[in-house]
Amino acid sequence: MTLDPSGIVTDIPPSHPRYASLMARERLVGGVRSGLTSEAGLIAHGRGEAFDYLLGERTTDEARRAERTSAAMLLIAAHPVVSVNGNVAALAADQVVELQRRLTGLRRKRDGSASPLVVEVNLFHRSEERVGLIADHLRANGAEGVLGESPDIRVPGLDHARGLCSTGGVGSADGVLIPLEDGDRAEALTAWGRPVIAIDLNPLARTSMKAHVAIVDELTRALPAIWEEAEDLASSADEDLRAAVGSWDNGTNLGRTLQRMARRLQDLGGGRPGEGI
Amino acid sequence: MTLDPSGIVTDIPPSHPRYASLMARERLVGGVRSGLTSEAGLIAHGRGEAFDYLLGERTTDEARRAERTSAAMLLIAAHPVVSVNGNVAALAADQVVELQRRLTGLRRKRDGSASPLVVEVNLFHRSEERVGLIADHLRANGAEGVLGESPDIRVPGLDHARGLCSTGGVGSADGVLIPLEDGDRAEALTAWGRPVIAIDLNPLARTSMKAHVAIVDELTRALPAIWEEAEDLASSADEDLRAAVGSWDNGTNLGRTLQRMARRLQDLGGGRPGEGI
Repeated sequence: MTLDPSGIVTDIPPSHPRYASLMARERLVGGVRSGLTSEAGLIAHGRGEAFDYLLGERTTDEARRAERTSAAMLLIAAHPVVSVNGNVAALAADQVVELQRRLTGLRRKRDGSASPLVVEVNLFHRSEERVGLIADHLRANGAEGVLGESPDIRVPGLDHARGLCSTGGVGSADGVLIPLEDGDRAEALTAWGRPVIAIDLNPLARTSMKAHVAIVDELTRALPAIWEEAEDLASSADEDLRAAVGSWDNGTNLGRTLQRMARRLQDLGGGRPGEGI
Repeated sequence: MTLDPSGIVTDIPPSHPRYASLMARERLVGGVRSGLTSEAGLIAHGRGEAFDYLLGERTTDEARRAERTSAAMLLIAAHPVVSVNGNVAALAADQVVELQRRLTGLRRKRDGSASPLVVEVNLFHRSEERVGLIADHLRANGAEGVLGESPDIRVPGLDHARGLCSTGGVGSADGVLIPLEDGDRAEALTAWGRPVIAIDLNPLARTSMKAHVAIVDELTRALPAIWEEAEDLASSADEDLRAAVGSWDNGTNLGRTLQRMARRLQDLGGGRPGEGI
């Protein structure tokens, strides 16, 4: 393991107990240096790390249920969209592309004329340069039909730069996956009538609370879980998937997640003072 | 309130409910741009923000007790030192200087020949350039006798660059305040026999668990609390202060802090789904 001058680990052995977490940090700092990610994105990532520690850095039962419900939403939506920002691009561009490829394939198996899973770049703090960098990065990873560079409509309730989006993207979507999204944007999308799936490690974030389905899980664990659940559900009837989505109770699932985190804190509080992270 | 292109709030009204938190972010991003702070420091700050939210973003009773005990330690130590890194310099250089000024004054009131509270720059990922920038920044804020630019000794158990320090600083200290310190360094200082006071928002961090006194509080709340408690204790007898420090039980205090965070998560879990951060 070596360190570059800023203290970022640059050669992490996969056997390291915190490999995934250290790799994510490295990708994000790389993202800041290449312009994909903002500095504020690094602070947001740190907040997520703390909540992930309280989850035990693993996919909980509550998260898996949310991932399964999200998979159903993305299978039955007429126009599903995944929204990509700088942190998502830096952390998981390859997985976003894999999700697009797999979900589009499963949707077309169910219905030959189904639309693809659309990938749209949306930044809370929009800069045309950063949108272009992120779109190029997604295309370099194999994404098809990336939207976001030529916005033509606005999310109501957000100021001009923050609300810009595409008619063919969230503008017409009836199912939007918003990983690591800002609370204002999540709330505005919901108020606009878009059924929203959030991926956010903070169960107390407005993004989690305002979403129809909040996946409280780490991004690079959540994306594969969604496509695995989609594969498992691919042959289910539309009405069964619709019923599963309709009966989803996001507040109850978030409450259970909070209880789980509280139990873990309590267990750690009674624990072994010699340990620590 | 305005935003610069990277999304950092640059003109925050003091009436904003999260003024202190947003100002801290702004200072840190400024610190990265001016070279005081590393990018990894932004991620660490985000982790702290999450834990601070679980504390209710206020000084708890447990934190105040730790601050009082720390004040006693800094009053009775023969050679007290405060260790400053990039995040500390960006967030609270002015308060570190105020702490030095007040504690040195109180110590000399008790004993005319008492040594000052020494300020030493110590970086986990040392770069000579960054040490120099931080020392200059501290001096520009009024710090006296800043150490760290000419290390002449090493903390045992750390590799060369990480272990460098000064004989007149932590090398001879019998009381070291380490705000926002890395776990490896905190552990090595403790193993070296230095009585350590940590300021760290994460009660599960090795830094908190290995410290003699862990202050689980936000830096800019903790530093004034320490000097206020020191003023309150300034006329106490040495033996009383020594007894207070000797009876401190860090593990129990950390356990109570964890229980408090767990209760807050549980309360929030049963709470109002319309809210969020």
